Amino acid sequence: MDAVLRQSKAVCPFLKKASPATLRALSTASRQSAAAPEASSALIAASPCGGALSKLQLLAGRCPVMGKAMAVQATRIGTSRVAANSSMGYRGVAASLSQAFSTSARASAPAPARTCPHAAASATASSAPRTARLHTSRSQEARAVDGHVFNEKGIPTSIPGTAKVPKAAKAAANKASTTPGFAAAPAMMQTKFDYEGFYEAELDKKHKDKSYRYFNNINRLAKDFPRAHMAEKEDRVTVWCANDYLGMGSNPQVLRTMHETLDEYGAGAGGTRNISGHNRHAVHLEETVARLHAKEAALVFSSCYVANDATLATLGSKMPGCVILSDSLNHASMIQGIRHSGTQKIVFRHNDVENLEAKLAALPLNVPKIIAFESVYSMCGSIGPIEAICDLADKYGALTFLDEVHAVGMYGPNGAGVAEHLDFDAHVQGRPSGTLMDRIDIITGTLGKAYGCVGGYIAGSSQLVDMIRSLAPGFIFTTSLPPATMAGARAAIEYQMGYGGDRRLQQLHTRAVKESLAARDIPVIPNPSHIVPILVGDAEVAKQASDMLLHDHQIYVQSINYPTVPVGQERLRITPTPGHVKEFRDRLVHAVDSIWTELGIRRTSDWARQVPGGFLGVGAPPAAENKPLWTDEQLGITQAVRELQEQKQVGSNGVTEALLAQEKQSSSTVSATA
Amino acid sequence: MDAVLRQSKAVCPFLKKASPATLRALSTASRQSAAAPEASSALIAASPCGGALSKLQLLAGRCPVMGKAMAVQATRIGTSRVAANSSMGYRGVAASLSQAFSTSARASAPAPARTCPHAAASATASSAPRTARLHTSRSQEARAVDGHVFNEKGIPTSIPGTAKVPKAAKAAANKASTTPGFAAAPAMMQTKFDYEGFYEAELDKKHKDKSYRYFNNINRLAKDFPRAHMAEKEDRVTVWCANDYLGMGSNPQVLRTMHETLDEYGAGAGGTRNISGHNRHAVHLEETVARLHAKEAALVFSSCYVANDATLATLGSKMPGCVILSDSLNHASMIQGIRHSGTQKIVFRHNDVENLEAKLAALPLNVPKIIAFESVYSMCGSIGPIEAICDLADKYGALTFLDEVHAVGMYGPNGAGVAEHLDFDAHVQGRPSGTLMDRIDIITGTLGKAYGCVGGYIAGSSQLVDMIRSLAPGFIFTTSLPPATMAGARAAIEYQMGYGGDRRLQQLHTRAVKESLAARDIPVIPNPSHIVPILVGDAEVAKQASDMLLHDHQIYVQSINYPTVPVGQERLRITPTPGHVKEFRDRLVHAVDSIWTELGIRRTSDWARQVPGGFLGVGAPPAAENKPLWTDEQLGITQAVRELQEQKQVGSNGVTEALLAQEKQSSSTVSATA
Repeated sequence: MDAVLRQSKAVCPFLKKASPATLRALSTASRQSAAAPEASSALIAASPCGGALSKLQLLAGRCPVMGKAMAVQATRIGTSRVAANSSMGYRGVAASLSQAFSTSARASAPAPARTCPHAAASATASSAPRTARLHTSRSQEARAVDGHVFNEKGIPTSIPGTAKVPKAAKAAANKASTTPGFAAAPAMMQTKFDYEGFYEAELDKKHKDKSYRYFNNINRLAKDFPRAHMAEKEDRVTVWCANDYLGMGSNPQVLRTMHETLDEYGAGAGGTRNISGHNRHAVHLEETVARLHAKEAALVFSSCYVANDATLATLGSKMPGCVILSDSLNHASMIQGIRHSGTQKIVFRHNDVENLEAKLAALPLNVPKIIAFESVYSMCGSIGPIEAICDLADKYGALTFLDEVHAVGMYGPNGAGVAEHLDFDAHVQGRPSGTLMDRIDIITGTLGKAYGCVGGYIAGSSQLVDMIRSLAPGFIFTTSLPPATMAGARAAIEYQMGYGGDRRLQQLHTRAVKESLAARDIPVIPNPSHIVPILVGDAEVAKQASDMLLHDHQIYVQSINYPTVPVGQERLRITPTPGHVKEFRDRLVHAVDSIWTELGIRRTSDWARQVPGGFLGVGAPPAAENKPLWTDEQLGITQAVRELQEQKQVGSNGVTEALLAQEKQSSSTVSATA
Repeated sequence: MDAVLRQSKAVCPFLKKASPATLRALSTASRQSAAAPEASSALIAASPCGGALSKLQLLAGRCPVMGKAMAVQATRIGTSRVAANSSMGYRGVAASLSQAFSTSARASAPAPARTCPHAAASATASSAPRTARLHTSRSQEARAVDGHVFNEKGIPTSIPGTAKVPKAAKAAANKASTTPGFAAAPAMMQTKFDYEGFYEAELDKKHKDKSYRYFNNINRLAKDFPRAHMAEKEDRVTVWCANDYLGMGSNPQVLRTMHETLDEYGAGAGGTRNISGHNRHAVHLEETVARLHAKEAALVFSSCYVANDATLATLGSKMPGCVILSDSLNHASMIQGIRHSGTQKIVFRHNDVENLEAKLAALPLNVPKIIAFESVYSMCGSIGPIEAICDLADKYGALTFLDEVHAVGMYGPNGAGVAEHLDFDAHVQGRPSGTLMDRIDIITGTLGKAYGCVGGYIAGSSQLVDMIRSLAPGFIFTTSLPPATMAGARAAIEYQMGYGGDRRLQQLHTRAVKESLAARDIPVIPNPSHIVPILVGDAEVAKQASDMLLHDHQIYVQSINYPTVPVGQERLRITPTPGHVKEFRDRLVHAVDSIWTELGIRRTSDWARQVPGGFLGVGAPPAAENKPLWTDEQLGITQAVRELQEQKQVGSNGVTEALLAQEKQSSSTVSATA
C-alpha cells in the first residue's frame, strides 16, 4: 500500500504536498446526502457499498484531472472498486486514485462478493454489477463450435454453417493479444500456451491483492467441544468461528446413530439415487425435513451449494420467460444457480422491499418469477424481510425461494428457521397453516451447520420436489450421501425439534459476547441474529489479527476477506455456541481487546467519529431492525429477571450472566440425561 | 406407442396397408454404408447413434411426403431423435415418422444424453447437438437486466442504457405466447403464472416418454455384502448394479477408521475449507491422492460431479480464448463444467483420435486448449485411447483432463486407474516418470465408487491445484467433507494401494458373468472393462425386466433409460464385485435368461440376424478393442492354467471357474487376516 501511495504522490502535486495527517483527516467519510452537490454524478454513483464518500474523494472529484479519470474508471469497473475503497482510510483512497490514473487499468477489476446490510446502493444492472464476480463469469455459456474458428492470426472467424462467432470468443481473442503466452503475431503462434506460467500469474494476482488464502489446520475435538488441535495433537486452541453452531457434530445421539448405521449399512451409498443409492435413510431424512418445514416433500443433495445451484438453474431454465429477482447479498451458490439457469436476473437492493416491489411491478403478472433471498445473511447477520416479501409474491404472482442455511436448527420452536420463528406461537401449537413458513414456496437448508453433519436440501410442494428430482443434473448424476450421514442428520433434526435448549443457550451466549465486546468499544457490526462480525476494514490487518489470536492467544477466528466480503469490509466473524461458556468468552474478549490496541485497529468510537452516521452500522445509533430476533420473552429472560430480582440475586445489570449461570446448570442436566 | 402407430397409419396409406409382420421386418436396420445411395442426405446424416437406418426409414426417405418431412425434421431437431428411434423397432420408426408429420413439432426435442461407443456419428456442432441436453440448457447465461424488460404485451423490449435484450429472453417470450399460463394477450396477462400446473406438465412429459424414474429402496447390508434389504428388513435381495465395485463400503479397515474418527472428531467438518473446515484429514487425504496418481498435489471436493464442474468451469473461463475439446460420451458433470465455463467447446467423436486430431490441427498452437475425456465410460464400458490423446496433446500444446471416476481402485498395480494400468510394470517398480499417468495433466476421480465412501478430487501440478483451490466457487463456498468420510476414503485408497486381490477377483467375476451370459445368447455390449451392459433397447421393457428381476428373483439391477443413455439403447447394467460368487452368478444368469424368454427380448443372435453388422457391438464379430484390459498374465490366469493343467484338474474349458475356486480360498484367507 505504501508503494501505491508513493506512486500516487508522484503523479499528483496535491498528494505530494499534503502531510500524512492531512490525508488521514481527509480520508474520513462524508455521507452521500451531505456531499457537495457539485461532485460529479459518476462519483455520487460510486458509493454503492459503504454509503459514504471520503472527503479526499470529493476533493478529487473537483480536480480537472482526477475528476475525469475517476468518472471514466467508475463507468468502466462498475463503480464497485472505487466504492469499496471509500471506507479504507487514506491508503485505500490513494490506491483508488492511483488506480484511476493508471493507464493500464484492467477492464475487469474484481467487484465485491457480498456487500453489507446498511448499503444505500442501487443494485440494478443498468447502474453496475454488484454481486460476486465469481470465477466462472463469462457473459454467456459455452457453445459448441467447429474446429475452424481461428484465422491464421489466432483471431476467431465466423464459422460456415453457424450463425456467428460467440462474442465471448471474440473478446477472448482480443484480450489474448495482450496476454502473455497468447499473441496475435504469427511468430508467437508457434509457441504452445504456457499453462504453468498462467497458473502462476493467477496465483500472483491473489498474493498481490492479499486475497490469497492460507488454510489453518483445525481439528475440532468431539469430546472437548469447542476445543481443537492444530497439526500437532498437543497444540490446542478454542474454535470461535465454526458453523457447527449448536455443537451437534459431537452430540451423543447423532454419533450413536451414525455408529450404528455405519456398522449396519457401511461407509457409502454405492450409487446415485436412481441406481442403488436410494434407501430408507434417504426416505426417512426427506420425510423428516418435510415435516420440519411443514411441506409436502423434500429432496436431499450433496450440499446446499448444489441444492441452490441445481434448483434455481432448473426452475429458471425450464419455466418459459422466467425472471429471477435476487437479493444483492445472496450467497455464491444462488448467484451461480441463477447464472446457470440462463434466464433473466434482476438484482434488488439488500432487504429493500420498495426496491423489490418497483422491479416486480414492472413485470407482467403472468410472467413466471422467483424471488430468491436468505433468512440470515451469514457474513453480516442481517435478516430478510420474509413477511413483506411473501406479500409481494402474492401480489405479483411470484415464487418465493428462501435460503435458511444459517437459520435451520437455530430459530423457531422446532428449529425450522426464521420463517418458523416469526410465527412462534402458531408452530408451538402445531398450526402451520397460513404461517409465513407455509407461504414460502421453496425453503433450502443445510445439514452441515447447526445440524453438524454435511449435505443440503430443498422443501416444497410434492410436484415441485418431484420435478427437481426428475430434471436437475446436479441431483441425478451424483452419488447419494452415505447412509450414516443421512441417518445422523435426521437424528440431529429430530433432536433439535424436541429440545430448544441448545439454540436458546446459543442466543444467550451471543448476547453475552456482543455485550462484552460493546463494553470494550470493539466494533461489532450490529444485527438481530447469532452472527458476531467484528469490523476490521483491511485484508492484511484482519489476517494479522486472526494470526495473533491463534498464535498468541490460542483462539481460532478466521479473517474474512475478499471475495467472501467486499474489499474494505474485512472482518473477524465470531460464532458463539452453547459450549462457549464464560471462561472462553472472557479470554476471547480480552484477546481481541489487546490485539485491537496492539495493531491500532479502529474501535466503535473511532468509526463514529471518523464516519458521520457510522459504517455498516458500526458507530451508528441503535436501529430497530437490529433488535434480537429471539425476544427476551422467548429466551425466558423476562421471567428469569423477575425471579432473580425477587431473590435479590441481581440488579439491573448482569442479567445475561446470571441467566447463563442458571442455563449452565440446566443444560448439563439435559446433557447427562440425553 | 400404439396410439402413435394408429396416428401414423391414419396419415400414411402405405403404413395403413402394411401388415404388422411387414412393418416388423422392415424395422430391421441396414448399415449406413449399405444404404441405398439415393436416400436423402438428411436421412443419411440422421443416424449418429446406432450407426444403422431401418429399411422402413429408407423407404420413407423415398416417399415424396415423408422424405421432405423427415429432412426438415432432421435439420430442426438436430437428427438425434430420429436417429435414436432408428433402433427401436417398428413402433419407434412409426413414432419417428409420426413426429415428422406433426405440424406442432417442438423445436427442442430432447437429444440423447450419452450415445454409444460404436457410433459412427459426426459430433461437430455444425451438424447437430449430440451431447446431453441437460435441463439447464439455455444457450446463454443469465444476465442482469432492469425491471422494464417487457412491454404491455408481455414481450421483452430493449432496455434504455443496456445494449440489447438477451436473445434468450426474446426466445422465451416468443415461446411464452404459445405456452399455457403465459400469453401475449393482455387479458391473459392478468392471470398469475400457474406454477403447480407447470410442474405437473413437466412431470407428465416424463411419464409419457417413459423417462420418469421410480427409485427402488435398497439398503445394502455391510455384514452381508452384496445383499440388501428393501423397505422391510426381511425383504432381502442381491444387489448387482452398485458402484461399490470392490465392496470397500463394508471393508473392516475402512469402517474401523471411520468409527475412530467419528468418536474423536465428530460428525461434520463445521465449515468451509477456509473457515474451520480444513484439518489433518483433508491434508492426509489430499497427500494420499497425490501419491496415488504420482502428482504434486490434489484437491478434494463434495463429489466428482462438483470436481469436474468446478475445475473445467474455472479453467475454461480463466484461460484467455480457451477451447475445450470434449469426447461425445463425456459425463454430465463435464458437460456442465464446460457449459458453465462459457468458453468454446468442440465435441469430438467418441474415442475417435483422427477426429480429435482434425479439430486440434485447426486451432492455433498458442491457443490454450483442454482435451476432456474419460478412462472407463460407465454405461457402455469402453476405454479412452489415453496414449494417443497424450501424443496429440503434446503435438498441439493441449492440456489433458482425464476422468478416472469408474477406474480408480480398479486398474493398475496401485489402483490408480487405467492410465496407471497401461504402464503396469513401471508402476510396480515405482518408476512413474514418463508414464502415461505422468503425462496426463489433470486426473479426476471419486471416493464414492470403488473406494466405497463419498466425495471427488482432482490431482495435478501444485500450481494448478492451488489455482483451482483459490478460484473455484464450487470448492470455496461449500462445507468440507466430514472428517470420518475423509479418513475412511484415505484408508480405502491405501488399502487398495497395498492389496490387488479385490480388483483381480472383481475382473475374474466380470469375465465369468460375461462368459455365462454369452453362453445363453444374452446380448452383452462388448467392452474391455468391468462393466456388463445388457442391451434391451426399449424403456418400458427394460423397466419391466428390472422389476421382474427384483420381485420374482430378488435380484436388483436398475434399468438404465434416457437421459442416462439415448432412447433406443436402454439396458440393464450389471456390475460384479469380489463378493458376487458363483451361487449369486448362477441365479442371476438363470433369472435373466428366463426373463428374456418371458418378455421376448432380442438375444445376441437376434441382433446379429436383424441388424447386419450388429448394434452397439452386439451381434458383431469380436473386435480387438474389446479384449479385456486386465490381461490373462496380469490376472495370473496364464500361470494358473499351466498349474491346473499340470494337476490335470481342468481341461481347456472352465478355467475361470477353477481359478475362482482358488481365488475364493485365498481371498477368504486375506479377509480373515485383514
